[in-house]
Amino acid sequence: MNKQELISTIKNKNSFLCVGLDPELEKLPPHLLSEKNPVLEFNKQIIDATHDLCVAYKPNTAFYESMGENGWSTLHETVDYIPQDLFTIADAKRGDIGNTSKMYAKAFLENMGFDAITVAPYMGKDSITPFLSYENKWAIVLALTSNEGSIDFQKIEDSKHTKLYEQVLNTSKNWGTDENMMYVVGATRAEDLENIRKIIPTHFLLVPGVGAQGGSLEDVCKYGMTDEIGLLINSSRGIMYASKEKDFAQQARKEAKKLQEEMKIYLDKRFG
Amino acid sequence: MNKQELISTIKNKNSFLCVGLDPELEKLPPHLLSEKNPVLEFNKQIIDATHDLCVAYKPNTAFYESMGENGWSTLHETVDYIPQDLFTIADAKRGDIGNTSKMYAKAFLENMGFDAITVAPYMGKDSITPFLSYENKWAIVLALTSNEGSIDFQKIEDSKHTKLYEQVLNTSKNWGTDENMMYVVGATRAEDLENIRKIIPTHFLLVPGVGAQGGSLEDVCKYGMTDEIGLLINSSRGIMYASKEKDFAQQARKEAKKLQEEMKIYLDKRFG
Repeated sequence: MNKQELISTIKNKNSFLCVGLDPELEKLPPHLLSEKNPVLEFNKQIIDATHDLCVAYKPNTAFYESMGENGWSTLHETVDYIPQDLFTIADAKRGDIGNTSKMYAKAFLENMGFDAITVAPYMGKDSITPFLSYENKWAIVLALTSNEGSIDFQKIEDSKHTKLYEQVLNTSKNWGTDENMMYVVGATRAEDLENIRKIIPTHFLLVPGVGAQGGSLEDVCKYGMTDEIGLLINSSRGIMYASKEKDFAQQARKEAKKLQEEMKIYLDKRFG
Repeated sequence: MNKQELISTIKNKNSFLCVGLDPELEKLPPHLLSEKNPVLEFNKQIIDATHDLCVAYKPNTAFYESMGENGWSTLHETVDYIPQDLFTIADAKRGDIGNTSKMYAKAFLENMGFDAITVAPYMGKDSITPFLSYENKWAIVLALTSNEGSIDFQKIEDSKHTKLYEQVLNTSKNWGTDENMMYVVGATRAEDLENIRKIIPTHFLLVPGVGAQGGSLEDVCKYGMTDEIGLLINSSRGIMYASKEKDFAQQARKEAKKLQEEMKIYLDKRFG
């Protein structure tokens, strides 16, 4: 999916919601455990219940890999099940030397057909560029994450007071364009977002950490939204695990709807 | 495998060689392509031909993932085939928020039974510590890699002239011990190694980039070896693709033997 298609989808749906699909067997509604493939059934019902309210799905590969070979096929079946007009992100946080990243790109962007993959920047340019050689596909580079450990290295300053995550933005934005690169930016602090927009005024940001992790959707929109929207806001647990009962999909829809309706307010405010 | 067992294995075999298992279908000896699973057959024959000369195998997950579900089972079958007395490393370069890294740890250290996994440090402490909670298992943290892109961020200096990779060593060494953490250090420059040994005098280093990529084994031993050896030197392409003919395994053995014999010289010099 290219940038214009993504923007149109967002405007049509009044939503820039991304739903995380990170299923853990232990957390699934118990009545699904008798299914042949409980995780796939769970994902399908979540997708059925939410696909008109969101614009993207983001399965995190770790959850599938922890289930072995079956997990890997479940991941593939899940992405195949997602309707064509939704943006799909392999949250894989890969990154390796050039010839190896090329293999990861093949695995996720080519074989599985994801629109995008999250990548880690530590190994530099040749670890990222192999993901940028596919038409209408995207690399989403980790910049500032929302976890505790993000302060360990991402905020280290050089002699000119440039933080590492700012260096990552400054340097990597030249490896591609805002039509094949996005950035992961944890939605924890408005001032960080403001700062990030000075460095990358037009790139899409994939923002985790709204809701359960405490980020404010209003602030993210205020400081992160651009004239081309420029935001994908992810919610995983808040939607997936809204209920463990038989109505889990309905409850997931309710949570997704809440977020979508709030997003509509901020879209209307800016574009309405 | 714990540290003492690894050291004993190295001393018994006069080798600290790690063989990379990164098979690409296009590069396999053509006569294997008629096998039911050419990649698995290739790996098995490489393992049969080299396991007495090396102490570790390191499959890089990218190559298996690029083959889809079959690749994932081939990876599992490969690690199952490696004799018990060898150290096994999933070269996966994973790293995510705590609850997600826990899933990766489960996938590789628990389900597949690897002794170790390579991990990327960008997301900080909670992305690494889940890999440290398994007895006699290891996290191998990227510090200074051997690829071109390593200069993009790893050598950025803070106001006190501490480089990012030095910060990674300084900070992360306190998350575990030299009995459950190692570091990836590209063998490109002796002065870097000398410097690294000042920060982590006793940790094992996993060193790629000797041979094909131009690092000198002699220099790595001179500047990197410790009283407890402290080195695993990896060679992938130089061994795996020594020949595309029917004698590929024999030729792979020849290349492995060359490295092992040179390693014996440096071991004898220090411990003989």
